Amino acid sequence: MPRVVDHNERRKQICDVLLDIVSEAGISAATIREVADRSGWSTGVIGHYFTNRQDLLLGGLRRAAEILAEHNTRVINTLEGIAALEQILEGSIPLDKRRLALCRIFFFFYAEGMTEKDLRQELESYLLGWRKSATRAIRQAQAQGDLPADLDPKRVAADLVGLADGLSIHSLLDPGVMMQLREQSPIRYWIRRLASEAPDHKGEPMPPSRYASA
Amino acid sequence: MPRVVDHNERRKQICDVLLDIVSEAGISAATIREVADRSGWSTGVIGHYFTNRQDLLLGGLRRAAEILAEHNTRVINTLEGIAALEQILEGSIPLDKRRLALCRIFFFFYAEGMTEKDLRQELESYLLGWRKSATRAIRQAQAQGDLPADLDPKRVAADLVGLADGLSIHSLLDPGVMMQLREQSPIRYWIRRLASEAPDHKGEPMPPSRYASA
Repeated sequence: MPRVVDHNERRKQICDVLLDIVSEAGISAATIREVADRSGWSTGVIGHYFTNRQDLLLGGLRRAAEILAEHNTRVINTLEGIAALEQILEGSIPLDKRRLALCRIFFFFYAEGMTEKDLRQELESYLLGWRKSATRAIRQAQAQGDLPADLDPKRVAADLVGLADGLSIHSLLDPGVMMQLREQSPIRYWIRRLASEAPDHKGEPMPPSRYASA
Repeated sequence: MPRVVDHNERRKQICDVLLDIVSEAGISAATIREVADRSGWSTGVIGHYFTNRQDLLLGGLRRAAEILAEHNTRVINTLEGIAALEQILEGSIPLDKRRLALCRIFFFFYAEGMTEKDLRQELESYLLGWRKSATRAIRQAQAQGDLPADLDPKRVAADLVGLADGLSIHSLLDPGVMMQLREQSPIRYWIRRLASEAPDHKGEPMPPSRYASA
């Protein structure tokens, strides 16, 4: 009897191999041939799931979005308030190989999304989901008195998500920005700066920050 | 006697026509043929300056960088401190046609810069120039007592530049973010929030902000 193949599972495995290649060698190295070499599946098997390279890369984008959505759900189920907010915002900051792959595949499609409508709408839905998770964590932090009540959670979420993505993009283009990201998390810096304004603030003081001027 | 052609000036004019097309119809519409149709110069004349479409787009990127550098120099010569900082950061927020073109051409090359070394270094130099202008304005604002002295100018400049670019990119993908950008400048919001922490702060109070939660 032939072995039953779980097609969803295999599709996911192919995309994970793709993301490994993207993290190690970049988008330009991510081809059907390379995934075949690396995974042991033939290009024919991979072609059963993805019709061409662009389709394979799109599979990688969707897998990246799924990984980030799972990350955010896990964070929301195990942390709350400011701790959750930090994890949600740092989920795709490229400080390790896994997150580097997510950044590269997302930013590759951001450029395409500016000219292709369907893709743009798909990216919009991912950004919206990200902002919603951040908004929820901000509301919790406000309810706990850890963030000022005068902040509009939705707008602050949009700005922090913009900050996280902007710095991630710049860090892939500019080693100076990457070095700063590695030294201290700007995300945490700004969240704690906001937190220090909360009237009930009794948490840590402002971090003895490298942001302090010399 | 043949008319003397100022080649630098013509090259600039060709790039400006390209940027007009990019602002109105996007990168995908920006071709040598379209620039020829729009400008009245033949494709042969344009080919004298740009060998192919990619080269023409690269010309558009360099013209965009030049426009932004001129903008920043003008700002620094006419404004100072917080007023200068706001203008420097908002120079490429896509709230009008001119700045929409700058964003589109920059973000198109950001994606390419992640895989091509020479281009990456070129983009790095543009980002560095932008941060330097912002750093200078932050130092001025601190000297005037308008921003807290405990901020590290270079790091805060990097973060604000990241915020500006991140929100610009998201606004091109997500109409919700664009709507928020149009309603109120997040750049000004965060700068004024920082300013309100300055001990000598005697400027405007926090804006009666739409950021206040309902």
